[in-house]
Amino acid sequence: MLRVLGLQEVLRVHEGFDIAPPFFELGPKAYLYGKGVLELAKAADRIGKRYNVRIIFTPQYVDIPLVARETGYIHVFAQHMDSIRIGRGIGSVLPESLKEAGAVGVLLNHAEKRLSLSEINRTIKRADEVGLATLVCADTPEEAAAIAHLNPNIILAEPPDLIGSSQAGVSGRNYVATINELVRSINPRLRVLHGAGISGPRDVFDIVSMGAEATGCTSAVVTAEDPAAMLEAMIRSMREAWDKSHP
Amino acid sequence: MLRVLGLQEVLRVHEGFDIAPPFFELGPKAYLYGKGVLELAKAADRIGKRYNVRIIFTPQYVDIPLVARETGYIHVFAQHMDSIRIGRGIGSVLPESLKEAGAVGVLLNHAEKRLSLSEINRTIKRADEVGLATLVCADTPEEAAAIAHLNPNIILAEPPDLIGSSQAGVSGRNYVATINELVRSINPRLRVLHGAGISGPRDVFDIVSMGAEATGCTSAVVTAEDPAAMLEAMIRSMREAWDKSHP
Amino acid sequence: MLRVLGLQEVLRVHEGFDIAPPFFELGPKAYLYGKGVLELAKAADRIGKRYNVRIIFTPQYVDIPLVARETGYIHVFAQHMDSIRIGRGIGSVLPESLKEAGAVGVLLNHAEKRLSLSEINRTIKRADEVGLATLVCADTPEEAAAIAHLNPNIILAEPPDLIGSSQAGVSGRNYVATINELVRSINPRLRVLHGAGISGPRDVFDIVSMGAEATGCTSAVVTAEDPAAMLEAMIRSMREAWDKSHP
Amino acid sequence: MLRVLGLQEVLRVHEGFDIAPPFFELGPKAYLYGKGVLELAKAADRIGKRYNVRIIFTPQYVDIPLVARETGYIHVFAQHMDSIRIGRGIGSVLPESLKEAGAVGVLLNHAEKRLSLSEINRTIKRADEVGLATLVCADTPEEAAAIAHLNPNIILAEPPDLIGSSQAGVSGRNYVATINELVRSINPRLRVLHGAGISGPRDVFDIVSMGAEATGCTSAVVTAEDPAAMLEAMIRSMREAWDKSHP
Repeated sequence: MLRVLGLQEVLRVHEGFDIAPPFFELGPKAYLYGKGVLELAKAADRIGKRYNVRIIFTPQYVDIPLVARETGYIHVFAQHMDSIRIGRGIGSVLPESLKEAGAVGVLLNHAEKRLSLSEINRTIKRADEVGLATLVCADTPEEAAAIAHLNPNIILAEPPDLIGSSQAGVSGRNYVATINELVRSINPRLRVLHGAGISGPRDVFDIVSMGAEATGCTSAVVTAEDPAAMLEAMIRSMREAWDKSHP
Repeated sequence: MLRVLGLQEVLRVHEGFDIAPPFFELGPKAYLYGKGVLELAKAADRIGKRYNVRIIFTPQYVDIPLVARETGYIHVFAQHMDSIRIGRGIGSVLPESLKEAGAVGVLLNHAEKRLSLSEINRTIKRADEVGLATLVCADTPEEAAAIAHLNPNIILAEPPDLIGSSQAGVSGRNYVATINELVRSINPRLRVLHGAGISGPRDVFDIVSMGAEATGCTSAVVTAEDPAAMLEAMIRSMREAWDKSHP
Repeated sequence: MLRVLGLQEVLRVHEGFDIAPPFFELGPKAYLYGKGVLELAKAADRIGKRYNVRIIFTPQYVDIPLVARETGYIHVFAQHMDSIRIGRGIGSVLPESLKEAGAVGVLLNHAEKRLSLSEINRTIKRADEVGLATLVCADTPEEAAAIAHLNPNIILAEPPDLIGSSQAGVSGRNYVATINELVRSINPRLRVLHGAGISGPRDVFDIVSMGAEATGCTSAVVTAEDPAAMLEAMIRSMREAWDKSHP
Repeated sequence: MLRVLGLQEVLRVHEGFDIAPPFFELGPKAYLYGKGVLELAKAADRIGKRYNVRIIFTPQYVDIPLVARETGYIHVFAQHMDSIRIGRGIGSVLPESLKEAGAVGVLLNHAEKRLSLSEINRTIKRADEVGLATLVCADTPEEAAAIAHLNPNIILAEPPDLIGSSQAGVSGRNYVATINELVRSINPRLRVLHGAGISGPRDVFDIVSMGAEATGCTSAVVTAEDPAAMLEAMIRSMREAWDKSHP
């Protein structure tokens, strides 16, 4: 295994970025923008600080500069970028432009924005070059293993339906452990975020208790009557579950 | 012909936007970002005002807010957007986010970012809804005619190789007139910008003299030793050619 | 208008192909293949001949040679092709390969296989070159008008929900007439096929009575208990409706 | 490592297919079709038999049935397929249709037909289901490792420029060995084909001598004055190099 790691130059992984567990990804997708997204970002900043939980926050591209300037604790990631270099590429997202705008990382290969395997690889390398962390989505255990060979900073594993539902239990716990072990057998420095259809604080508590060091949410927060209150409940749950299982 | 126009509801074209000829599109593509693109935008703002020539300026998404805030004369357009509505769509560009960030329009279907016919149609409608002007690219006369039926504000016609070269002359003049006539026979309110591989002020003078009411440039400006000086020479040429042919 | 037609070289439309109304498109999509699709193709061949109704039949690529060899009355079209020329292009469908395999035309831009405006244009030109007829899908009246400028042989207009439902009536009739008129005001030689969520013979009768010269079906035929019997009922209905409205 | 293999169900890899080294992939891409491709396929069939070298042959979709019927020794693979199931999907290539047409495998993710990581995964699973072998392309060592986790039958590794050039030598040998070792450390049953810009029999000899168990060619064969003679020279070279290094 060490030989494999050598070959892939594990050390090129973006060194400037680390994120201590537990952490949380709050993705406003295209639900919020402008003033609305800024307000949620500021709430996330306060809440993260209060509970000592880092939050990755992914606004629309145009909102990155303001969100980055007005917050200090959350990690501002872009929702996507392209592997293009300075030059042509109308309509594409230039990595350097994100960095200068204040982003510290980028989400890649979400189910709503699939990339070819080659483009995932090229884009992770571009992120390393310009100093952006990478959070790369995987649908299945084998895709998580595949992506682990490309050396992102974090893998976002989307577990099957069982997790996040009331039937999770034992099989959910096995699933989280299996993915963590598989990914780390390939690249021990990789962090794994378990996306899990989180619909409330209880789901956050459960998945962290199952061994996840990170999870995330979109719709249950942005469509809540009071998004900041829902986020705070989830982050508090995350802290409690983490402290309980890491005494 | 009137019946055709009636059917397609010409009046839904975004009413809030008009741009008086002659005008110019300056596209920094992915050549410039951050401080560099802001500097060029400010120069374009001064130069456009000086010569009374409107300039459409298309920065990277993340640079739209700053460019829009720091300028007052140029029209800030996004390089692309998606037809998605508020909700899901990670990595896509939400029309509402561009509008709130200060963009007044959007470029669509550039050769570097092709869209399906249906997506062009949907995106123009979304732009109308949120109040963004549309500048839609066409490769050939028949594609310009096709797009004219979709009611954008401006068509960017990319003429064949002959234009912008020293052999342009009579055939170039015919080409410009032919496209203008064809597009206006379908939709008389449409403006046509003739992209033409502009490499210097002389090319701008020539194409305006051939009947174009607008043209544009990327590489000859952004790769010039002094981009602002090159832009000023082009805009001065545009004003001179226009005044000469519209006495 | 004549000037427009001149400019777009209407005459380059594939001359070798014409199809007399009424006609029908039977699309097996990916429901049938091999022996199953051959059986339906042979049934379509017999039924079309019996009622003097031409049927456009679109099998999977690999089934084109056998279906073309074993039938004589139906028109075998591919479900898609690319605009590539002889040379590179792994995984793409070469126009010349379809022609030599026995196809006489190609379907383009279906909702399940969207193409960019430029690719639609290039592919229609390639079809003209190699002698394949083109049947190009449009979602809306304005997209039908746009495609009419690109000179395919037939436009497949997908009407809105009202058609094919019991509420069709007057508005359905207006819709069919409007599309036909709009398309023919641009290019009088174009044929228009009105796709309409046909679920049985009655729907075929209705849409032909509303002025359609062609329609088509997939799921109601291929999922029928006896597909050949369902097809025959539809084709008989088409003939009856046509003869009644064209005495 | 064994645990990893267990998790990914190595055993689901299509059991019905194995190919003994040395073997060769002859890809006519879109250079040949109809009679031309059949003639080359028959030559490949004779030549492969004569030298006891299996040849994977990838014609245009429509030519699969005839090529499969008229040959007996070569392995007929499709150039691509989709992961769709029986049902909708106009213009897509249904796995079941390839199998019934006589294909025994499919090429996936070539540089001219990139797939998303998820689609590669789904399509390999579909191929396993219907009994088609998979030959999946990888640009870089890390992409080869990634794909190895998805359990195809063969990985087509495209080595960097050095191979196939006169400067290959030591570094070429290291490259071949490195990829082979890396892939087999993940999945020992995987075969690796080293694509290498093969331009003549000498290149084939060299890469097999460097440790490759398979290689392939397109343009040097299809554009040769006598394609069958060029193919024969390459296959003879492959046999000689193999026998010399596997005494």
